[in-house]
Amino acid sequence: MKKVPTEILDCIKENQSFLILVHNKPDGDAIGSAIAFGKGLKALGKNVDYYIETPLEDKLQFFSESRYFEDELRDEYDVVTFLDCSTIEYAFKPVPMVDARTTMVIDHHATNQGYGDINFLEITAATAELVFRILDALGVELDPEMVEAVFTGISTDTGSFQFANVTAETHQILSRLYEKRDNFAVLSKRLHSEKNYAQMKLYGKAVDSLQLYEDNTLAWIFLSYADICKYGGPVQITDDVANIGMNVIGVQLSATVKEVECGIYRVSLRSKTPFKIDVSLIARKYGGGGHMRAAGFTFKGDLKALKKELIEVIEYYRKHEEDI
Amino acid sequence: MKKVPTEILDCIKENQSFLILVHNKPDGDAIGSAIAFGKGLKALGKNVDYYIETPLEDKLQFFSESRYFEDELRDEYDVVTFLDCSTIEYAFKPVPMVDARTTMVIDHHATNQGYGDINFLEITAATAELVFRILDALGVELDPEMVEAVFTGISTDTGSFQFANVTAETHQILSRLYEKRDNFAVLSKRLHSEKNYAQMKLYGKAVDSLQLYEDNTLAWIFLSYADICKYGGPVQITDDVANIGMNVIGVQLSATVKEVECGIYRVSLRSKTPFKIDVSLIARKYGGGGHMRAAGFTFKGDLKALKKELIEVIEYYRKHEEDI
Repeated sequence: MKKVPTEILDCIKENQSFLILVHNKPDGDAIGSAIAFGKGLKALGKNVDYYIETPLEDKLQFFSESRYFEDELRDEYDVVTFLDCSTIEYAFKPVPMVDARTTMVIDHHATNQGYGDINFLEITAATAELVFRILDALGVELDPEMVEAVFTGISTDTGSFQFANVTAETHQILSRLYEKRDNFAVLSKRLHSEKNYAQMKLYGKAVDSLQLYEDNTLAWIFLSYADICKYGGPVQITDDVANIGMNVIGVQLSATVKEVECGIYRVSLRSKTPFKIDVSLIARKYGGGGHMRAAGFTFKGDLKALKKELIEVIEYYRKHEEDI
Repeated sequence: MKKVPTEILDCIKENQSFLILVHNKPDGDAIGSAIAFGKGLKALGKNVDYYIETPLEDKLQFFSESRYFEDELRDEYDVVTFLDCSTIEYAFKPVPMVDARTTMVIDHHATNQGYGDINFLEITAATAELVFRILDALGVELDPEMVEAVFTGISTDTGSFQFANVTAETHQILSRLYEKRDNFAVLSKRLHSEKNYAQMKLYGKAVDSLQLYEDNTLAWIFLSYADICKYGGPVQITDDVANIGMNVIGVQLSATVKEVECGIYRVSLRSKTPFKIDVSLIARKYGGGGHMRAAGFTFKGDLKALKKELIEVIEYYRKHEEDI
């Protein structure tokens, strides 16, 4: 197990009241980290409050500790801790007007500049790994819910231990969790495979709509407004819909088009090797943004023209592949 | 790391020529175990041949060692080793007519009775775990392909570390593999997510066909002969199609019906908690078989009647749930 900065451990030992914040639209790592850290502090006799956006997504609604997420806040805390939150702007807004003697930031995002008085920043697979390390260094015994919370953080942020962010330490931590509980199968299924009927139907419509262009290097996936409405609206579209195209062998660029209102399209772009053009450049052209390999924008106009343009991007790329 | 029986280590040390067999229709664990074990023996200066069914499924066609799977066999070996093969009948047939001074069985299946002269049987997540343990005990340095082979065995037999068979040792081994190579993301994607266009289209048709009955406890999934033919035939239907229904929240029993020839249906049944009726009993009624939670049969007749009967099974179960 790698080390934890002494000032982080000292800050926890020397203070009594803690407020825990995570990023908005909290995912499994934000919630898992918050609960493991919060319950760990409580086990050390600290006073802990949470300031976390609710309702949580369905798959994360099983932690009994989350009942405290709605509690009223104090006016003052010794320490406000930001977990899994790469910038302060990314935190759940409005950031509460509480007095904090110290702000502490614990995060695994490479882009985090360290906006706290004390910062524990390290590029790990999940913030939950850093939380585990802290609790381990403090000698906190993990209760069953904390074990589930750390597992949830790591499992969700690694796509069930598949992503490139997994390290030897990730599996060392998992091994420690399995020493405390012998079966995470139901939880894994909940976090990664299960969908409600509407989500599954929309996922099926999306996969069924798959079309390939340009020697099968461009995937085009379309969910119509009629289908989306039929199955409960855009809220029922799961994140994995945007990755369907990337799972087709040979595809380098995929566009997932969701007609979220009549004639208004939300487009998610994804790319993979050997495609080298930054897809956020394409998204920005349409007023969107994102990263090199995942970007998105909202589009209102002629879908055929959009498809034609993406085909041209792929054509251009394939002609100039060597030069890019 | 747990122990390896001394007689297994001695048998390897004291002999020179080895033939490696695995079960028929070899999966990731069979192939991964064979390659890691075979290359490990070669690293110790042994002569190794393989008797393994080919062609391998697409996702497993990346090991350079598999080029030796077609090599001619000798008439005689010091040791014939059965890997990941729960019974000798399950081995690739015809079992070659070679003379073996010793037969050695290495397997993780609970049902293995130990049909070798020497047996290393332990219920682990994958046979590849046992192979890793053996190579570790023998001090063999894993080359990059052996690392990939062990990873492939464990990752495929655990559904990417999600199944109930995963243990603390599974993650300890994974941690050791990550010390040798820092990224298994592309391999994980290959093993778990990627499909070719035809496979993805058929998967989409299957998901899109989902219907629920009996308060959403029975899932019904249907692939028509026309669709199957359009996308390259039954060979393009991936195993995960049979699990779609199980991933719908609330579903207890799912039937996946594939019209493999005109009017001939291959039916896969799956069940999950709290459903307690052994689905192999249903399958057996139609001339099929399987296990408590996964069974199948071939059906020729009135599909509506079959659906009605499954609905009755669910109804019966829900009425008598307490008594079962």
